Amino acid sequence: MSSNAKKTITVVSAHSADFIWRCGGAIALYHDLGYQVRVLCLSYGERGESARLWKQGKTLDEIKTVRRSEAEEAAEILGAQVRFFDAGDYPFHPTKELQDAVVNEFREHQPELILTHSIEDPYNFDHQRTTQFALECRVLAQAEGYESEHGILGAPSVFLFEPHQPEQCNFKVDVLLDITSVFDRKRKAMECMNAQEHLWEYYSELAKRRGVQAGRNSGSAISLTGNKIKYAEAYQRVFPHVGGLFV
Amino acid sequence: MSSNAKKTITVVSAHSADFIWRCGGAIALYHDLGYQVRVLCLSYGERGESARLWKQGKTLDEIKTVRRSEAEEAAEILGAQVRFFDAGDYPFHPTKELQDAVVNEFREHQPELILTHSIEDPYNFDHQRTTQFALECRVLAQAEGYESEHGILGAPSVFLFEPHQPEQCNFKVDVLLDITSVFDRKRKAMECMNAQEHLWEYYSELAKRRGVQAGRNSGSAISLTGNKIKYAEAYQRVFPHVGGLFV
Amino acid sequence: MSSNAKKTITVVSAHSADFIWRCGGAIALYHDLGYQVRVLCLSYGERGESARLWKQGKTLDEIKTVRRSEAEEAAEILGAQVRFFDAGDYPFHPTKELQDAVVNEFREHQPELILTHSIEDPYNFDHQRTTQFALECRVLAQAEGYESEHGILGAPSVFLFEPHQPEQCNFKVDVLLDITSVFDRKRKAMECMNAQEHLWEYYSELAKRRGVQAGRNSGSAISLTGNKIKYAEAYQRVFPHVGGLFV
Amino acid sequence: MSSNAKKTITVVSAHSADFIWRCGGAIALYHDLGYQVRVLCLSYGERGESARLWKQGKTLDEIKTVRRSEAEEAAEILGAQVRFFDAGDYPFHPTKELQDAVVNEFREHQPELILTHSIEDPYNFDHQRTTQFALECRVLAQAEGYESEHGILGAPSVFLFEPHQPEQCNFKVDVLLDITSVFDRKRKAMECMNAQEHLWEYYSELAKRRGVQAGRNSGSAISLTGNKIKYAEAYQRVFPHVGGLFV
Amino acid sequence: MSSNAKKTITVVSAHSADFIWRCGGAIALYHDLGYQVRVLCLSYGERGESARLWKQGKTLDEIKTVRRSEAEEAAEILGAQVRFFDAGDYPFHPTKELQDAVVNEFREHQPELILTHSIEDPYNFDHQRTTQFALECRVLAQAEGYESEHGILGAPSVFLFEPHQPEQCNFKVDVLLDITSVFDRKRKAMECMNAQEHLWEYYSELAKRRGVQAGRNSGSAISLTGNKIKYAEAYQRVFPHVGGLFV
Amino acid sequence: MSSNAKKTITVVSAHSADFIWRCGGAIALYHDLGYQVRVLCLSYGERGESARLWKQGKTLDEIKTVRRSEAEEAAEILGAQVRFFDAGDYPFHPTKELQDAVVNEFREHQPELILTHSIEDPYNFDHQRTTQFALECRVLAQAEGYESEHGILGAPSVFLFEPHQPEQCNFKVDVLLDITSVFDRKRKAMECMNAQEHLWEYYSELAKRRGVQAGRNSGSAISLTGNKIKYAEAYQRVFPHVGGLFV
Repeated sequence: MSSNAKKTITVVSAHSADFIWRCGGAIALYHDLGYQVRVLCLSYGERGESARLWKQGKTLDEIKTVRRSEAEEAAEILGAQVRFFDAGDYPFHPTKELQDAVVNEFREHQPELILTHSIEDPYNFDHQRTTQFALECRVLAQAEGYESEHGILGAPSVFLFEPHQPEQCNFKVDVLLDITSVFDRKRKAMECMNAQEHLWEYYSELAKRRGVQAGRNSGSAISLTGNKIKYAEAYQRVFPHVGGLFV
Repeated sequence: MSSNAKKTITVVSAHSADFIWRCGGAIALYHDLGYQVRVLCLSYGERGESARLWKQGKTLDEIKTVRRSEAEEAAEILGAQVRFFDAGDYPFHPTKELQDAVVNEFREHQPELILTHSIEDPYNFDHQRTTQFALECRVLAQAEGYESEHGILGAPSVFLFEPHQPEQCNFKVDVLLDITSVFDRKRKAMECMNAQEHLWEYYSELAKRRGVQAGRNSGSAISLTGNKIKYAEAYQRVFPHVGGLFV
Repeated sequence: MSSNAKKTITVVSAHSADFIWRCGGAIALYHDLGYQVRVLCLSYGERGESARLWKQGKTLDEIKTVRRSEAEEAAEILGAQVRFFDAGDYPFHPTKELQDAVVNEFREHQPELILTHSIEDPYNFDHQRTTQFALECRVLAQAEGYESEHGILGAPSVFLFEPHQPEQCNFKVDVLLDITSVFDRKRKAMECMNAQEHLWEYYSELAKRRGVQAGRNSGSAISLTGNKIKYAEAYQRVFPHVGGLFV
Repeated sequence: MSSNAKKTITVVSAHSADFIWRCGGAIALYHDLGYQVRVLCLSYGERGESARLWKQGKTLDEIKTVRRSEAEEAAEILGAQVRFFDAGDYPFHPTKELQDAVVNEFREHQPELILTHSIEDPYNFDHQRTTQFALECRVLAQAEGYESEHGILGAPSVFLFEPHQPEQCNFKVDVLLDITSVFDRKRKAMECMNAQEHLWEYYSELAKRRGVQAGRNSGSAISLTGNKIKYAEAYQRVFPHVGGLFV
Repeated sequence: MSSNAKKTITVVSAHSADFIWRCGGAIALYHDLGYQVRVLCLSYGERGESARLWKQGKTLDEIKTVRRSEAEEAAEILGAQVRFFDAGDYPFHPTKELQDAVVNEFREHQPELILTHSIEDPYNFDHQRTTQFALECRVLAQAEGYESEHGILGAPSVFLFEPHQPEQCNFKVDVLLDITSVFDRKRKAMECMNAQEHLWEYYSELAKRRGVQAGRNSGSAISLTGNKIKYAEAYQRVFPHVGGLFV
Repeated sequence: MSSNAKKTITVVSAHSADFIWRCGGAIALYHDLGYQVRVLCLSYGERGESARLWKQGKTLDEIKTVRRSEAEEAAEILGAQVRFFDAGDYPFHPTKELQDAVVNEFREHQPELILTHSIEDPYNFDHQRTTQFALECRVLAQAEGYESEHGILGAPSVFLFEPHQPEQCNFKVDVLLDITSVFDRKRKAMECMNAQEHLWEYYSELAKRRGVQAGRNSGSAISLTGNKIKYAEAYQRVFPHVGGLFV
């Protein structure tokens, strides 16, 4: 465990804005619970997710700068620490150096939870390669024989956030996370992405839709007394839950 | 909610012994948490699960009596209230009367959780038909228009317990429930089934195996300080978890 | 073919409002293309989908009357002929008489397309049973040996409309139907359901969301010149498309 | 769009003969519809699909020459332009250079449709790697930030052609393409492959079998008046169909 | 075991001709190995599979007579004993009486193997209902408590034969049975179905296609010395193989 | 075929101990049947599977030496020839040199069967990468055009052995191999792994559990006369079985 006494959750994000749309609510929620939230942006999404900036005639370096700055602003609103690896996108191919860096990051901060992309995404191969990479770094970080200055990782749970077109990605909803209390901050974080107003609306509506479903799937106490969940985010679980209660 | 102020979990069991082998740990655990645990035995398993008694030349009525008595003894050890419907087995085909009875049972006791069999079981069609029946009764109990003296049901979670041959039943493990603290009572309950010593051992070993896996899937605190989980039961979740935490 | 020279599409709807939320756009679209659109409401949804009316203290017969009247009004806006079978809901169990009636309906009107519910729906067993029933009636209607005054049915395509929680129903999106030109009428039809304002919004937002996805999945001509699709409905195909073009 | 005003479809073929057996009918059909058909042969199949030539003692270069010449002859019969990348087979591993070349090819010709192999093929890993590669090049070609002299690609549909053993490859049939009008030319193209007479027969019979199934799955007009489809090819769709009709 | 000392395999066929097209080779093969082969025709396929006879104006009884006679002739050629249950088709719905009869049949003859239809068949619901029924009768026949004059059944393997459109039925090929030595008799048996010449050819070609695949999947001895398998039938296994060898 | 006249089976093992826990019984069984059994250890498992040795402060080379020696001892007990490739683990990434070596190994020894890991393993990516690699080497070894001093490989069957958490790996049980006659030697081989007593027990219990299931799935002769199978190993089949019998 790092000298930092706080518990940690870690988000592994292919491009610098993914963490906002897909798990901004979870980040704010865990920040409010007192967790340290680490966001690892493997790339800036400079080639694949910056169409507007390319059309404005910006250079690659300028685009990275803009993307980084927007992500930092959003992270601050959500309460996350963001770390940029600048590993390139479209396509993203992890190197041995990146693997070492992420394994060490996991070991140093000992996340209790890891959030990342879906297993499949035929619209964005960087996403599925990031998931594969994050899962493998987690396993490597558990091995005594993997060289590192930090002690081995335990067995953090992994949750996959919702892709843009869930049915095409064989995404299954295992958790509907109630983000009603922090939705305002998620909305503000989304609004840091200046040129993407259509996505602010799209992901606000998705949060509402998942909120309605959360109401429909939740326990008797809530549905008998009136459902208070307005906004939710959907996640898929990778490993079984272990505990002394059904949750 | 019934006049009984306790919270409830309900087990829907095709035959009178299924609840012991498959979720005896969960029953004892929730009893200890202060829950009322209702076990609904749709049949005694008099035809399909009583080979020994038939070989002894017992009549159908004698067999039902023995099966009932064993189940009651086991339920007492685990802390459950058991209700028998005597709806017949091999094959089990639910009637309108049984449906009304189970819908009313759900409405009266308002379970927070329902435990039942797997979606598929090519070794035992009563099991999969029971699952289908329990899921449908849950939906019917939610409808204002279904006639009943009790108020409608909320949206209890449903967990499926592990079948005898999980891979053949497309069973997925979503939860590994730590039953270490109550395993002794599960063992004693199993031992009420006098003629099935081989199953005592089989299900004790399964609990150990699931316990080892629980250790391997659990969070850093546990795996860093030494795994304390010795026994577990495996469950599959039917509906998404809704809540304010990843669990 | 019936004396009516128009081509036909037929919707098989478990409850009397399903056709509005789930395929109202398709109905209006095919009406505008000159098709006769037949909507078969197997029940009024009197028990399972009329919570508000039960809470108002209405009787079963009153509820059926209200539900029928709302459905007729919506059908008129969309341009559909609606036929009620009053076969009961929650649970829906088809009888031999209903089977004969639906087989004869198919044979008389010779639909080119059949629209119905999803294969699975753990929130509503009437839905999945309706799908199974519609698919079987289609097969029976194709058999020379099935008694009927009408000639046999060809091999109409079958499309499944989107359930409330698509991922839980293993629903796959094979078609995104552009309903932009008729969305206003779908909205009006939805508004016939007086007491369900929250669903007007929910399904309007869903149509927008599917519209955005339609844009993202459509061919180069559209995406190069600016996407005009605003609203869409999602469908799953049951049988392979046959033809001389990839579509 | 290229200066060529014709619309384009593009086939991505792992080895130089795959396009003949698997989508020769589609090629001829689209040629007749006035399309430009581009066939990209990533390798000649010189190692993995040329057993006869190796047994004759030919060198690697001689084998490539023979395979190229046969493919050119077949392409001419079908009406396709064939482009060879000589990227090596058994195993096929795409390089950055090949990726650039295929992305640029897609951008220059702006295909409306892309045809390629199945997602899985445990008998031929080059096939599944080609599919993955073609899908990723399509995504990269859509990105403003990917360097290229040509404008970005839209969102062409992708269809997967039938592998040798479809059930082992989890291949699903979404489209049965009627190739009756061009089957003679597909047969002639197959006969360019001199040493593989057994495959001429095998794929002719497959086309007949798929033709019979096409008849059984097609609309009432056809099945009422006598089925005219004799030959078909089977395809799996990757992305949803978008349009104003169910097709 | 019946007084008949021969080992038995049993085919459960929904309609009276299914056993010929789908497992005629297996029947002849096991007959030649000295097995008693029991074919259980649950119906004559009088409504669903006798289009030609209905068009000729025959009555229901006449059609049953023709279908029975054709099936008997084919069974004799293949070496099977055929038993007719006349339980009705289109739709097939098993009764308690039919269940008793089939359970007793299984117990009396103690089959080592059971062959039946696929798990799913959206073109023919009788087929999938027959599979479900056969699997359940097998389980019931294993139960001491199921009333019968015969002793309980062991655990015979179950193999599913290939449906008309395997990919639409999620059929998986686990076994390719070499029927080269008996194919002539399968062809003769098929030719007993006078009015269905197109199917003779269709299923002969299918046998060839499966034969080619058998060659491609078989062991080194065969493929090194030249493939001798010309005809095969495909089957899916339901339960694991148990034995002392990988086979 | 190699000069060695014995028939061969080959195990492809990611780490040096996998072959003991997962298919030690199969190895001993085939040894007793007169087969040459080749075990290919791609790595020693020096980083990922040697926690105890790292904790003792051993160097990488020392760990490899210990692991090699333990594996050799176990192989001798089981009757296998073990070959070490020292290709590295955690992560395992195959090189062209390794590929050439394994292709040549397959060609020289012409295995009738290949045993390897499961298709998926989210707990151990080396395992699934080994499976992919073994399957691809098998295909490459079948190609005339792949350079090698040995003749091409036939089409050996491939069986996947059971992973640690089968349900998480989508492992399906197709074969339950009766290892009762050789279980003592499997146990002794496991005991060569000095520091892993907990795994001796875990895999002994697994063998018993699979043995019980084998009894439940095996033919009538066995279950009528008393089940003699005590220990079994579970395997998944990759390619269809080809033969003249259902097995």
